[in-house]
Amino acid sequence: MKVAIGGIDGYIGWALAIHLVRKGHTVSGIDSLITRKRVEEVGSWSATPILEPKARVMAAEEIFGSRIEYVEGDLTDYDTVESFLEATKPDAFVHLAEQRSAPYSMIDVRHAVETQVTNITSSLNLVYAIRARCPGIHLVKMGTMGEYGTPAIDIPEGFFEIEYHGRRDRLPFPRMAGSWYHWSKVHDSGNMMFANKIWGLQITDVMQGVVYGTRTPDITDERLLTRFDFDETWGTALNRFCAQSVLGIPMTVYGKGGQTRGYISLADSVQCLRIAIENPPKKGEYRVLNQFDESYSVRTLARLVFDVAKIKGLEPSIANVSNPRVEEEEHYYNPAHESLTKLGYRKTRTLEAELGTIMDDLKRYRQRLQAKREVILPRTDWREPENLLR
Amino acid sequence: MKVAIGGIDGYIGWALAIHLVRKGHTVSGIDSLITRKRVEEVGSWSATPILEPKARVMAAEEIFGSRIEYVEGDLTDYDTVESFLEATKPDAFVHLAEQRSAPYSMIDVRHAVETQVTNITSSLNLVYAIRARCPGIHLVKMGTMGEYGTPAIDIPEGFFEIEYHGRRDRLPFPRMAGSWYHWSKVHDSGNMMFANKIWGLQITDVMQGVVYGTRTPDITDERLLTRFDFDETWGTALNRFCAQSVLGIPMTVYGKGGQTRGYISLADSVQCLRIAIENPPKKGEYRVLNQFDESYSVRTLARLVFDVAKIKGLEPSIANVSNPRVEEEEHYYNPAHESLTKLGYRKTRTLEAELGTIMDDLKRYRQRLQAKREVILPRTDWREPENLLR
Repeated sequence: MKVAIGGIDGYIGWALAIHLVRKGHTVSGIDSLITRKRVEEVGSWSATPILEPKARVMAAEEIFGSRIEYVEGDLTDYDTVESFLEATKPDAFVHLAEQRSAPYSMIDVRHAVETQVTNITSSLNLVYAIRARCPGIHLVKMGTMGEYGTPAIDIPEGFFEIEYHGRRDRLPFPRMAGSWYHWSKVHDSGNMMFANKIWGLQITDVMQGVVYGTRTPDITDERLLTRFDFDETWGTALNRFCAQSVLGIPMTVYGKGGQTRGYISLADSVQCLRIAIENPPKKGEYRVLNQFDESYSVRTLARLVFDVAKIKGLEPSIANVSNPRVEEEEHYYNPAHESLTKLGYRKTRTLEAELGTIMDDLKRYRQRLQAKREVILPRTDWREPENLLR
Repeated sequence: MKVAIGGIDGYIGWALAIHLVRKGHTVSGIDSLITRKRVEEVGSWSATPILEPKARVMAAEEIFGSRIEYVEGDLTDYDTVESFLEATKPDAFVHLAEQRSAPYSMIDVRHAVETQVTNITSSLNLVYAIRARCPGIHLVKMGTMGEYGTPAIDIPEGFFEIEYHGRRDRLPFPRMAGSWYHWSKVHDSGNMMFANKIWGLQITDVMQGVVYGTRTPDITDERLLTRFDFDETWGTALNRFCAQSVLGIPMTVYGKGGQTRGYISLADSVQCLRIAIENPPKKGEYRVLNQFDESYSVRTLARLVFDVAKIKGLEPSIANVSNPRVEEEEHYYNPAHESLTKLGYRKTRTLEAELGTIMDDLKRYRQRLQAKREVILPRTDWREPENLLR
């Protein structure tokens, strides 16, 4: 199949591109490189040394013998989106080209507005351009499990059938996100559902859990490495814990640590996305997939990282710090995630095994962590946004 | 109380301003005058001749002896919002300053993006500026009943308690809006709920039905008239039916005409808003009020307009035209609306009586309708957005 990737230079985008190439798909991609700039803005960089886009595309061609078409461009510009679709004529478009950091969106009003405006604009541009140029293609839109929040009831995959005052209906599951970033994904989901309703666009909306890992089986050469963020803005809790353990500083568990989320490895995330692409929804269907393997609380994660770090000869420790976020710290959490399994997805990674690989990699890039150790501790406070001059 | 109104030059904004002044409140307001420009953009104007903002403020001062502070400014600029709050120091801020037309948002991708971006930006700017400058004030945010869509179950006021898989929770009611505009209000509601959660802002989110009417008891002089839109982009179905009957052209009922919505008169809308302002929610509460009186189907409205037009000596007729929108044309509709009544709201207008007043007014401004009769028929199609050059 011909697959186009929005955000091909990103953590998942690049890993997906080389995975699809190895599976025989034809891949093109577009990226504005803004994540590289935004990570620089907060004083950080990727723990893994990553090549410039053109160099990684050349490396992939040399290694796999397949050319990935890469274009630098910004999906918030409508004409760019139309031209890209016109030039690439894909069967599926995977939209990973959004601002993806919750803390970044919480820095101040400028970052809040920038996050919501750019994310919504790129998605609206995409559905309009698809409708205008290639209405029959399959749009795979990256959302997040964080859209649902942490309700006291089970979380279905997108929709649920309920009875209320003696009548029944199948409705979108209520969303209760935890940051402006997560809300931007909720807004997108509403917009995608509506684009499907009015134009019959074929859309898979992926509610993805937290992704971890430095490696996929497709990263057979250091030149193919994808980025790995570990700072408080761009790295997830798990990444930060690994980086902290490698640096010999305490893992910073926010609050009570009962915050529970769904997790999936990078290798299995790109497997899931490939399965979603190869098994599109029916014509005119809007499909929601919950994409994660297992749920863990933050304190369980810290414990797991602690144990693996010990085995790896490190000296891990755990510190409870006050929670800069506003979130439930002990809660019920039971989201469904059967659809991808029904489509053929099988988990290939355990968190424990993957933690070992991450730590081996980070030990090798220890100097890169060390150079940016001051950006690992929390500094974006959900309750106290900093002033506009930050 | 000191009340600030965002969008004070608008249909409801201006009527609310003079209502509050007459009830002894101190009123200030801000407006970018963009609705005037956008109505001009589609080739239309207000059926009622309205004064320029400074002239209407002077007329109100002359008539009521109270000065309304008016500032021209755009809430999508953060510094403007902060300066306005700093200068006016209100007890309550009523946010009516959003793009409010569903068809306008459906014209093409530019209008879709403009609608969602400007609406979301103004609301985010407001909550950040309130938090920075006056976190204790009451924000009254105008939303729409259209956020809920037309589910097959009862619609509560914002939240509902449900049982699912044997567990219970109180959750936001699922939203299923019918245009990019309506979705922008859904996005706002999510953002308002979150601003309340992280900062404890005191917010009333008003889910308002369709507002009708040319008059309130406060419009005691023609210089105090508020705008009244009748074109396909800015006028509601009811407004268009009245204009069409006065012009002697058929009322255009879209599709089967079973589309049912909640309605409220302009006089009672501003009464409700005053009651919400005078009875704020508890400190730290996010409150949702469904603000409408009665539900009517479009075909019932057409029938009511027909009957009143006959009495007024007009020659009304009804034409069913193909529906340019994508919506259920026959559906269940039963939204709750008890909260405002509990706060003291009493309906003072019937639709039938108000229709007579609207038609008397429109007969007087018949020349203004006649001059713009070509913009009454539908031309924005939900399924077929026009090209970018429109």
